[in-house]
Amino acid sequence: MAETDVAPTANLTEDRVREIIQEEITRAFKKDPAKKQGMLIASKGTLDWAYPPLILATAGAAAGLDMSIFFTFYGLNIVHKDFKKKLKVSPVANPGMPMPVPMPDIVTALPGMTGFATGMMKGMFSKKGVATIEELLDVARELEVKLIACQMTMDVFGYDQSDFIEGVEFGGAAAALSDARRSHLTLFI
Amino acid sequence: MAETDVAPTANLTEDRVREIIQEEITRAFKKDPAKKQGMLIASKGTLDWAYPPLILATAGAAAGLDMSIFFTFYGLNIVHKDFKKKLKVSPVANPGMPMPVPMPDIVTALPGMTGFATGMMKGMFSKKGVATIEELLDVARELEVKLIACQMTMDVFGYDQSDFIEGVEFGGAAAALSDARRSHLTLFI
Amino acid sequence: MAETDVAPTANLTEDRVREIIQEEITRAFKKDPAKKQGMLIASKGTLDWAYPPLILATAGAAAGLDMSIFFTFYGLNIVHKDFKKKLKVSPVANPGMPMPVPMPDIVTALPGMTGFATGMMKGMFSKKGVATIEELLDVARELEVKLIACQMTMDVFGYDQSDFIEGVEFGGAAAALSDARRSHLTLFI
Repeated sequence: MAETDVAPTANLTEDRVREIIQEEITRAFKKDPAKKQGMLIASKGTLDWAYPPLILATAGAAAGLDMSIFFTFYGLNIVHKDFKKKLKVSPVANPGMPMPVPMPDIVTALPGMTGFATGMMKGMFSKKGVATIEELLDVARELEVKLIACQMTMDVFGYDQSDFIEGVEFGGAAAALSDARRSHLTLFI
Repeated sequence: MAETDVAPTANLTEDRVREIIQEEITRAFKKDPAKKQGMLIASKGTLDWAYPPLILATAGAAAGLDMSIFFTFYGLNIVHKDFKKKLKVSPVANPGMPMPVPMPDIVTALPGMTGFATGMMKGMFSKKGVATIEELLDVARELEVKLIACQMTMDVFGYDQSDFIEGVEFGGAAAALSDARRSHLTLFI
Repeated sequence: MAETDVAPTANLTEDRVREIIQEEITRAFKKDPAKKQGMLIASKGTLDWAYPPLILATAGAAAGLDMSIFFTFYGLNIVHKDFKKKLKVSPVANPGMPMPVPMPDIVTALPGMTGFATGMMKGMFSKKGVATIEELLDVARELEVKLIACQMTMDVFGYDQSDFIEGVEFGGAAAALSDARRSHLTLFI
């Protein structure tokens, strides 16, 4: 054996090998692919609950994560072509919603209050420079957030693919879970 | 030293060792045990919100994941022996729920509307060939989805173990979190 | 070369190196830092939904996890100085809430029912020895649970930093997601 062949292995004791392994493992965990993906399930169909998945998905994508949103159940409203009409907010459903003046439940249940609350919510967000749902959907698509509509609930609610905005893909819960199990960040919203 | 003993190590330079480590780490991340488990927390007690944890858990289990559901707060309803009576859906609580005809809140708050909405929801799901809650619970147990009822909230609501369907285990939040911190897929529903 | 230098490498065949790597990787996955952190997003502002993030965060911290809660949207109520007044529970919004006597929606929508339901919820929890929200917040701070209020939604709702209880930090969604992508346990509540 030539000395040049022997020299490198001569130092590779088990301790040294374990040291190298530690270095490589530390490096591997730092770039764990599960840290680079996020999977959100958007299940609610009111105006207020349309913001969190879109804000979190665009914030995540802006920070370099590969984000996807699976729209299911009432969440289908968010990517429905008529989302502007479909996304409403009902004060009666949510005593946690800050109202300019506290109102008893019976008043918030009066006809027209949902329209009032929806307008107020839109006003609060736009006054503060937060993007509208439409703008957030545009940003999401620009940042290549995967938007997936749940086929099973589309069937249940009687929607078909042409009811949805451009850029939406269609898939089942199994595909969504398969994304989710590869990501640390998995949120049901 | 015999040549057969020396030959393998002769090639094990540090570079080669690092290469082997990369292969093994890549393989290890592919079979990361955190990818093979899913932990759902079912916290809601209405008919519509009983579907997502059961559908996701059975879809996950069918795809080979070890799934568990921790039923807590209102979610205890889902595995209560009287779940058929307990799981209702209120249109007043959810302006995101698609209704055949849009109704103002005051109408949806009339007595009887919860019964109507519950019937409509059951009809929509059954017409589309989606399993009933009862069937989904059966499938979950067949696929060995772990069903755990939260002891603390059972105490708060005054339930005892005999109130729950067969196959349910009982445990605390600490045990649920201990499952959750070993899984990528963790959803609070 | 002295025999002592050669001896260790003599046994380091590729098979043995792969064996060592397996041991180290198994050990590394057991102490995967992602298992030691939990990130909760508290988004709801009613009394009943204030319990889950605080109970899960304190249970997790007690079990040795580094927990943080990101309070956003209606969840800001939970750490608002006036949380006792702000956290209410509306029976009309939640047909899943166990009531001593079943009531039709129109009755639960009458003025005063939110107060009644809030009192009932507080009573149920305190009778069973569950800590109050105030106590849970104290425990969370003692266990060094990071409490972060979402700056964007603070702006939307017109809150400023002095509106929040002591110990609360302030941050954006990007920081919250950066915590979340390092944790297995990520829940949107």
